Amino acid sequence: MGLYVHKYGGTSVGTVERIAKVADKIKRCREEGHDLVVVVSAMSGETNRLIGLSQELNDRPSERELDVLLSTGEQVTIALLAIALQKIGVNARSYTGSQVRILTDNAYSKARILSIDDAAIRADLARGNVVIVAGFQGVDEQGNITTLGRGGSDTTGVALAAALDADECHIYTDVDGVYTTDPRVVDSARRLTSITFEEMLEMASLGSKVLQIRAVEFAGKYNVPLRVLSSFEEGPGTLITTDGPVEKKIRKDGESMEQPVVSGIAFNRDEAKLTLTGVPDIPGVAARILTPISEANVEVDMIVQNVGDDQKTDFTFTVHRNDYEKALGILEGLKGSLEAKAVRGNKKIAKVSIVGVGMRSHAGVASKMFEALYKEGINIQMISTSEIKVSVVVDEKYLELAVRALHSAFELSEAP
Amino acid sequence: MGLYVHKYGGTSVGTVERIAKVADKIKRCREEGHDLVVVVSAMSGETNRLIGLSQELNDRPSERELDVLLSTGEQVTIALLAIALQKIGVNARSYTGSQVRILTDNAYSKARILSIDDAAIRADLARGNVVIVAGFQGVDEQGNITTLGRGGSDTTGVALAAALDADECHIYTDVDGVYTTDPRVVDSARRLTSITFEEMLEMASLGSKVLQIRAVEFAGKYNVPLRVLSSFEEGPGTLITTDGPVEKKIRKDGESMEQPVVSGIAFNRDEAKLTLTGVPDIPGVAARILTPISEANVEVDMIVQNVGDDQKTDFTFTVHRNDYEKALGILEGLKGSLEAKAVRGNKKIAKVSIVGVGMRSHAGVASKMFEALYKEGINIQMISTSEIKVSVVVDEKYLELAVRALHSAFELSEAP
Repeated sequence: MGLYVHKYGGTSVGTVERIAKVADKIKRCREEGHDLVVVVSAMSGETNRLIGLSQELNDRPSERELDVLLSTGEQVTIALLAIALQKIGVNARSYTGSQVRILTDNAYSKARILSIDDAAIRADLARGNVVIVAGFQGVDEQGNITTLGRGGSDTTGVALAAALDADECHIYTDVDGVYTTDPRVVDSARRLTSITFEEMLEMASLGSKVLQIRAVEFAGKYNVPLRVLSSFEEGPGTLITTDGPVEKKIRKDGESMEQPVVSGIAFNRDEAKLTLTGVPDIPGVAARILTPISEANVEVDMIVQNVGDDQKTDFTFTVHRNDYEKALGILEGLKGSLEAKAVRGNKKIAKVSIVGVGMRSHAGVASKMFEALYKEGINIQMISTSEIKVSVVVDEKYLELAVRALHSAFELSEAP
Repeated sequence: MGLYVHKYGGTSVGTVERIAKVADKIKRCREEGHDLVVVVSAMSGETNRLIGLSQELNDRPSERELDVLLSTGEQVTIALLAIALQKIGVNARSYTGSQVRILTDNAYSKARILSIDDAAIRADLARGNVVIVAGFQGVDEQGNITTLGRGGSDTTGVALAAALDADECHIYTDVDGVYTTDPRVVDSARRLTSITFEEMLEMASLGSKVLQIRAVEFAGKYNVPLRVLSSFEEGPGTLITTDGPVEKKIRKDGESMEQPVVSGIAFNRDEAKLTLTGVPDIPGVAARILTPISEANVEVDMIVQNVGDDQKTDFTFTVHRNDYEKALGILEGLKGSLEAKAVRGNKKIAKVSIVGVGMRSHAGVASKMFEALYKEGINIQMISTSEIKVSVVVDEKYLELAVRALHSAFELSEAP
C-alpha cells in the first residue's frame, strides 16, 4: 500500500488502444492497493501537429498563445484516460495544470514550477479516485496558461511526487530502463538496477536520452525516488536514487563487494570543436573569447586551454554542431584583436564519457580509459574531467569502437 | 466607434486559411475604430473527432471528462486566431471559458451561464487588445470545466454582448442572413433586412437553422441586437432585434407603409404524427396520454384535440421522427386503459408555418394561408396557431409545393 506517481509519455498514450493499455496497467496497480496519481503527455504527434498549425499562420507566434494552444494536447489525454479507466470500473478524475493549480512563473514555453496545491488531489485520493493530471503545463499568478517546455511532463511527475511525498515516481517510456550504454552500439549493454541522480544527469546530458535532465535534478533536489520503466513490457526498470548501486547491494546482501567504478558509457555526436591557436597566455583571454560566443546564444560544452612555451596558448572548446558556423565566424572576427595565429575547427568529432560515482575515490580510472583507447589506436583530441565522469573527444569515425572498448574494459556487461 | 462581439462558427474557422481570413476581417473592423470581443467555435470536424476518440474507449463516457475533452477544441481556435492576428499586427489575447470566468451551473454537457466576470475583458480592451474568448465552455463554482452543449458558442457570444453591453453581437456563419424561406426550395426567397426575436425563434425552431434558439432567447431577454452575417461574403446580413422590420422602415423613410403581415415561411420534415381515436372526452385525458410520453423523454410539438359528438374525441400530436416508434408503443399500451378505439400514426408528414409579428393585429392571414393551400389541392391534416405563426401539417410530398405557394401568396419575394 503506497502512493505512486506514474508518468506516461506521448508514445505510451499515442493511440486509443495504448491509452486503454495504460488504463489496464493502472487498474492492476490499484488492485494491489496503491494510491495513484497519473501524469500524461500529449498523444505522440499532437504537439507537432499543433505547432504546425501555428507555424502556418505565424512563424513567430506569441509564446503566451502558443502555450494556450499546446496545453490542449495533454488536456485531451487526461480526459481520454479518465474515460478509459471509468470504462473498466476504475474511478478517475482528470485535472489540467491550471485546475490542480500547478503554479509557475510566467516564463511562457519554459515556465518553472513554484508550488502545487495538493489539497484537491489528496481529497480525491481519499475518495478512492485515481487522479490524472496534465503534464507539461501550469498556470501563473494571473491565471495565464503556461507550459514547462518539451519533456516537461517528467518534471510535472516529479514535482507532484515531491508535493505528495510519494513513495516513488514511475516514468513509463519506450525503453525498459537505463543501460550501461546504448544497446544499439554495444550488444552486451546491461540494464542498470539502479543509478544515482548524479550519474543519471551525466548519462542524460551526454546523450542517453531517457529522462529530462530537469526532472532528474528536481528529483535529486527533493529526494524523490525515480524509476524508469517500459510502458510496453513488464519489468523492474531502473531506480534512480541517492543510494548508489553498490551501497544498496551491500545492504541487501549483507556483505561487502568491490565497488563498481564505472556505471556506464555515454556518448554524443552532436558537437563540433573550435580552436584559436597562438593567443597570448594572459589573464582575461578566456573571457574575451567566450563572452561574444555566449552573447550570440551559443552554448559551450568542453573547454581546454593548453599552456604553450612562448607565452602563447591554444584555446579549444566544443559547441553544438548547429552553432558551429556561427562560432567560427565569431572567432574569425576575434582573431585580429587577440593577435591569434589561426582559427581551426572540426565537425567530425564525437565525445565519449565514462560515468560513475565510484570513480571519486578511485585512482587509475582515467588511465585505464586512456589505455583502452590507445590499445585500439584511437587518438584523444581533448580531455575533460569531473568528479563523476571523464570525457574525451575523438574522431567521429572511432565512436562505436571507443564505446565498445570502454564497455569491455570496465566489464560493464557483467552484473556487479 | 462601438463595441462589438463577433462570433465565428466552426466552418468559418475550419482551416488555418479561414482563420487567417477571419483575422483580416477583424483587422478591418479594428481599423474602423471599434472595440472587439471575438468568440470562436472549434474548427469544424474537431468536436466530432474528439467524440470519436472517446467513443472508441467508452460508449458511455462521463460527462465531466467529455467536457474536459471537448473544451480543447475551442481552446485550439482561440490560440490560433490570436496568433494569426498578431501576425498582421493586431494585438490580441485569448481566454478560455474558465479564464474569463464564464461561471455556469455544473450540468456537464448542457451547462447554463450564471455570470461573466467582465473586468479582465474591459481591461484588455482598454489596452487596445482584441479579446478572443472560447465559445461553448465555462467553469463551475468548483473549477470544473463545463460545456454549454452543441451550438453553445452562439450563447457565449450573446452572453458576452449582454455582460459588456455591446452595441451589436455579430454571428458569422455560412449563410449571409435570414431568408423569407429556404432558398433551396424557393428561388426567389429574399434575405430579410431585419426580423424580431420572436419571429426568429419561430423561424429557427421551425427548421431554418441559422442560430441556436437558446442564443436568440438570451438575446431577446437581455435586448442584445443580434446580426447574422456571412463569414465568406461582405454584406449587412440580417439584424434580429426588438424593432420589427416595418417599424424600422417607417422611421427610415419617414412615411407610413403597409405592414408586411408575414415575414417568412418555415418548414420541418422531422416530425411524425400520432393519433389515439375514440378516447373519452373527459377532464384529465390529455394528461393521461401525455404524461407517459414525456416521462419517456419524448418531446411533443403540436397537439390537437377534436371534439367528437358521442362523448368521444380524437387526440393527435406530433413528435420527432426518431421518437415515433417509442411513442407508438406507449399509445398501444394506453389504448386499453383509456378505452380508446385505435392508435394511428404517420411518419410521412411535414409542417409548414407562416411567421410574422404583423399577423397579431391582422385578421384573414390564416384564411389566406388555407386558401393558397386549397388552390394547390393540398389537404391540411392539422392546424396550430400562436400569436406570431400559423402552422399546418400536410402530406410530406406536398412540402415544397406548399412552401412555394405560401411564399408567393404573401408576396415575400418583394421587398416591403
